[in-house]
Amino acid sequence: MIRRYVFGNPIETEAVLRKPKAEQWEGDEQVLAFGANQTGFTCKLEQEDIVYGLGENVRGINKRGWIYVSHCSDNPNHQEDTRSLYGAHNFLIVSGKRNLGIFVDTPEQVIFDVGYTRPELLSVSMDSGNYELYLIEEASAEAVVQEFRRLIGQSYLPPKWAFGYGQSRWSYRTSEEVRQVARRFRENHLPLDMIYLDIDYMERYKDFTIDRERFPDFELLVEELKEQKIHLVPIIDGGVKVEAGYDVYEEGVKNGYFCKDEDGENFTLGVWPGKCHYPDMLNDEARLWFGRKYRFLLDKGIDGFWNDMNEPAIFYSEKHLKKVFEQLEEYRGQNLDICSFFEFCGLVQGISNNEEDYRSFYHNYRGERIRHDRVHNLFGYYMTRSASEAFEELEPGRRILLFSRASYIGMHRYGGIWMGDNKSWWSHLKMNLQMLPSLNMCGFLYTGADLGGFGSDATRDLVLRWTALGIFMPLLRNHSADGTRRQEPYAFGEATEDFRGLIGLRYRLLPYLYSEFMKAALKNGMYARPLGFVWPEDPVARHTEDQLLIGESIMIAPVCEQNAIGRSVYLPEEMKLLRFRGTELTEERVLMRGLHFIETALDEVTIYLRKDHALPLAAGGETVEAVDWRKLALLRFGEAAAYELYDDDGMDSGVKLEGHLFPVQS
Amino acid sequence: MIRRYVFGNPIETEAVLRKPKAEQWEGDEQVLAFGANQTGFTCKLEQEDIVYGLGENVRGINKRGWIYVSHCSDNPNHQEDTRSLYGAHNFLIVSGKRNLGIFVDTPEQVIFDVGYTRPELLSVSMDSGNYELYLIEEASAEAVVQEFRRLIGQSYLPPKWAFGYGQSRWSYRTSEEVRQVARRFRENHLPLDMIYLDIDYMERYKDFTIDRERFPDFELLVEELKEQKIHLVPIIDGGVKVEAGYDVYEEGVKNGYFCKDEDGENFTLGVWPGKCHYPDMLNDEARLWFGRKYRFLLDKGIDGFWNDMNEPAIFYSEKHLKKVFEQLEEYRGQNLDICSFFEFCGLVQGISNNEEDYRSFYHNYRGERIRHDRVHNLFGYYMTRSASEAFEELEPGRRILLFSRASYIGMHRYGGIWMGDNKSWWSHLKMNLQMLPSLNMCGFLYTGADLGGFGSDATRDLVLRWTALGIFMPLLRNHSADGTRRQEPYAFGEATEDFRGLIGLRYRLLPYLYSEFMKAALKNGMYARPLGFVWPEDPVARHTEDQLLIGESIMIAPVCEQNAIGRSVYLPEEMKLLRFRGTELTEERVLMRGLHFIETALDEVTIYLRKDHALPLAAGGETVEAVDWRKLALLRFGEAAAYELYDDDGMDSGVKLEGHLFPVQS
Repeated sequence: MIRRYVFGNPIETEAVLRKPKAEQWEGDEQVLAFGANQTGFTCKLEQEDIVYGLGENVRGINKRGWIYVSHCSDNPNHQEDTRSLYGAHNFLIVSGKRNLGIFVDTPEQVIFDVGYTRPELLSVSMDSGNYELYLIEEASAEAVVQEFRRLIGQSYLPPKWAFGYGQSRWSYRTSEEVRQVARRFRENHLPLDMIYLDIDYMERYKDFTIDRERFPDFELLVEELKEQKIHLVPIIDGGVKVEAGYDVYEEGVKNGYFCKDEDGENFTLGVWPGKCHYPDMLNDEARLWFGRKYRFLLDKGIDGFWNDMNEPAIFYSEKHLKKVFEQLEEYRGQNLDICSFFEFCGLVQGISNNEEDYRSFYHNYRGERIRHDRVHNLFGYYMTRSASEAFEELEPGRRILLFSRASYIGMHRYGGIWMGDNKSWWSHLKMNLQMLPSLNMCGFLYTGADLGGFGSDATRDLVLRWTALGIFMPLLRNHSADGTRRQEPYAFGEATEDFRGLIGLRYRLLPYLYSEFMKAALKNGMYARPLGFVWPEDPVARHTEDQLLIGESIMIAPVCEQNAIGRSVYLPEEMKLLRFRGTELTEERVLMRGLHFIETALDEVTIYLRKDHALPLAAGGETVEAVDWRKLALLRFGEAAAYELYDDDGMDSGVKLEGHLFPVQS
Repeated sequence: MIRRYVFGNPIETEAVLRKPKAEQWEGDEQVLAFGANQTGFTCKLEQEDIVYGLGENVRGINKRGWIYVSHCSDNPNHQEDTRSLYGAHNFLIVSGKRNLGIFVDTPEQVIFDVGYTRPELLSVSMDSGNYELYLIEEASAEAVVQEFRRLIGQSYLPPKWAFGYGQSRWSYRTSEEVRQVARRFRENHLPLDMIYLDIDYMERYKDFTIDRERFPDFELLVEELKEQKIHLVPIIDGGVKVEAGYDVYEEGVKNGYFCKDEDGENFTLGVWPGKCHYPDMLNDEARLWFGRKYRFLLDKGIDGFWNDMNEPAIFYSEKHLKKVFEQLEEYRGQNLDICSFFEFCGLVQGISNNEEDYRSFYHNYRGERIRHDRVHNLFGYYMTRSASEAFEELEPGRRILLFSRASYIGMHRYGGIWMGDNKSWWSHLKMNLQMLPSLNMCGFLYTGADLGGFGSDATRDLVLRWTALGIFMPLLRNHSADGTRRQEPYAFGEATEDFRGLIGLRYRLLPYLYSEFMKAALKNGMYARPLGFVWPEDPVARHTEDQLLIGESIMIAPVCEQNAIGRSVYLPEEMKLLRFRGTELTEERVLMRGLHFIETALDEVTIYLRKDHALPLAAGGETVEAVDWRKLALLRFGEAAAYELYDDDGMDSGVKLEGHLFPVQS
């Protein structure tokens, strides 16, 4: 059951498509207690309650015991004490004796104190108290998710080829380097469907330009790769460089499409290219204009994009930076003690993504001038919507690969997200696993983390173990930052068989993973579920934080620690262990309910097949297109176990379940 | 068997007390391979080898798969990719079919690439190639440790009362606040033996001063607390404030006791008080002088100290800071793009602990002028030695509590260490567990981490779980930074029974823990052992990273994850589970070898008693002195299981095992 309440004068986010009639809040203290000032509410947590949700955030699947702040942030330090990442996903589920979904719909910052201050209390607060509140009560957490997802509309569908393996790096800097990546993959028979272009393909980091010195033959490159079934996926920045003669800049200025400061001047901030303006993505006209710019690349054969920096990130604002230079002067020649020295350093540390800057520019949203901080969490969402709406105009009915760094619920209809600039840390491998179901609850199905870690230096074993998890992520991409150790499968100076095996297994699993993804998308379901969704009565299952159900048939329990020879795996019921050494099935063994130590070598993947379920397996291939969907082996646990496959042409954006479900004959 | 080799002209560290005769290196490529330039060596790692050791460092008990740099560093960000912490502990053990101990004795920076670049290779390198190398081969890892520890001499013995619970905070700022802490502990019947004073007890952060505005009655405070059996433990900074009229400064200048820059001027750097000089701790005369200054506090009844900032930390050097201000100017008014903006920020980020600064001052060591970077890792060691040698002169034969932040092997004879400025992270709880045995191998027995975490905000459950681990650490201290959430046991606005129970259990365990500590210290043994030390043939035990043996009789398996209701525990052999709800034993149950899910509530501790072993339990008490060592219960697993207790007066620094071992009658 969904109830909707409106407090104050909320700004419309367009997160919810079909709004139920608002009810009058009658102060049901059993459910929620409101603070005196109406800028938030509290909800009592029972000891056994698990709090699911909040999408892209650090810590566990169970969010209890921390404060999270919904405030899209360009923060590459995903630490245990980080409160905000790139997305703002204000949906959570209190799951115990009752299952209560809570969605706080407002584009401004929201603070979720999930039993941090008081272990038995969930406390939600915000500045203004203008918000819409949705309460969803159902018999199970999964039913709550389904109701919520129905409310916010169907998740984005990527093209089928986007379920292949993607290789990325900040940056492959020349056409030749891109060709070399493709060559090394093909030579080593490493499956590959995408190569990503990071910021250096552009001319001086200008959106919708090509650096012709480094990519003189860009169009030819796209074509050559297409022949090899490899898609080139360029990055797009949220900021537009201030540069006389640059068409995007000139048009934006002329038409007043950029965000304005309080004096009505175009707001100037620094990101990659130096001084930039941000297009007013919230302004319908500006959004339409910016989206149509993607045509520059579509016309060159590009069919996939990733939108970056759209929290929006601000390295510095012109005004604030000037002020900092003045303030720094005051410390020159002083005797700086622990207090004044830390203040001095803080001046520089505080330049980027400064809250004062977010309060110093304006949008024209639905005809109204609104200060940015009041709609901050919509920027990335509306940038991605900008592209998506343009694609629908330019290439109607066709799926284009599109994912974003920043997001708000609602954006899940227009694109996926990647999990941001993580690090080559073992803890981030585990966090990748934990974030997936939390995002699924909020509608984000096409997602994954930078495999191997973006920042910091990876080790070979980390990339292997992360690949063994990554092959179950809808978005499977190995990506790393400038200046870090290279982490392509062939970068460790050794044989690539083990990488080939792991990635190869992804391609054997494709019919299953794609089916489960599409069923989840088209039925508002979960692609990846916490164990507690399926076995809510089993306390150990409910508190298992490093295993997941992927689709209907299988459970995974990846190795998340360095030097481990295996791990302890919890089976809430009897399951069949399927052990793969690379693409080859090497062991099938029924395991009892309970704890098992499962040895798993670096080149192995273990999958746990549920009773009375089946797993279809293709022969594999080096591209998604090469996988034969019609020749499938069926691994079963239980004589009668059957599997219903979903298949389609992989390109039609208006697809339904009907006509695409097929029984698999084994 | 120990072999010693000398390469180049190493600087003496006095880490090793009794040096075996140096042998000629004959290039045993089976053991070690030398690089062409003799500035390091490599050692082949077999797949099954575990690499133990390296003392205070991040990551697991098994150090494989990362690069560690021995370079004492004031780095509060203990992340997975951190390469250096506060200590430099150049001892490791390659343990597999053979057990090879390697000690690289040099005071300069050493790089340990433990299978990072190439998984099958340990590679050790340094700049100069001047070092002494000790190779120790024995039948077991534990025998290697014992041989090594014999070489470096007996570990520091703290007074018995230092095994009590200590409460700390940066800072308890007034006498009244300190009294209040004591009162709250006593009112709540929370055991307590120490309150720590952080930097604010001093007058403008000057060593060996008291801020008389905030502590007008310091001597009375010390006395009052002593009556309650509470010891006040002040911090001492490595740096001496530049301030005319301040006696320590004036004497140091007059006698030339400070480190000099290349022009022979006193080297000026900023730490807590602003501009400071560092006493030349390596100079015998200066060291003697600085050590005797502790008398200022000893005379006031103080009998415990912690030495800080002695990596040595450098917030900034006067010269470098000046240069940075000039360099910053060059960026003013520029159009800063991603490259130049990051450079600009890097200028400020690079001010502290700058390598150039470490190359710009000098010591007078053994009559020779030596640039700091060549002896960097000795500074904290020699500062602590300074205090220890003075104590022996001023209070001969008496144990004084002393521990340090920075250290090098050798310092373990003079004091303990705490594990530095960690964070309120669950991962740091686990790291605390992992660091303990690694430090024990290197001679550091009296150690522990800031319980609850120093930086960042703690939650109540984190502090409880960390306390449940902390009660097994020799150094048991709850400490937190200025600006973070308070984390004293009574700080969470709730009942304190659960904290009282956990800390109370420590006092019940004291006779056992103290016995095991003293036996380890006096027999060059391990207080805390990895499971692989005891069950080297059991691959699961060898790779267990979150359980430890504490002394001879027990294994611990603390809960290291938030919201967990328990954990999977591996038993390499049959053991008896002892469950304590606070101080009360609530369950005894024999468990089979293998994996078990053990539920453990926030107020519970589970201990695993080994077969044919026994655990003595006292009745407890609110101070160490109140614990009755003569009335012990004996928990046994096996009818014949006995326990030999160590006991002494807790104050004699020259104690031996003889005459202090007693059979426990049950």
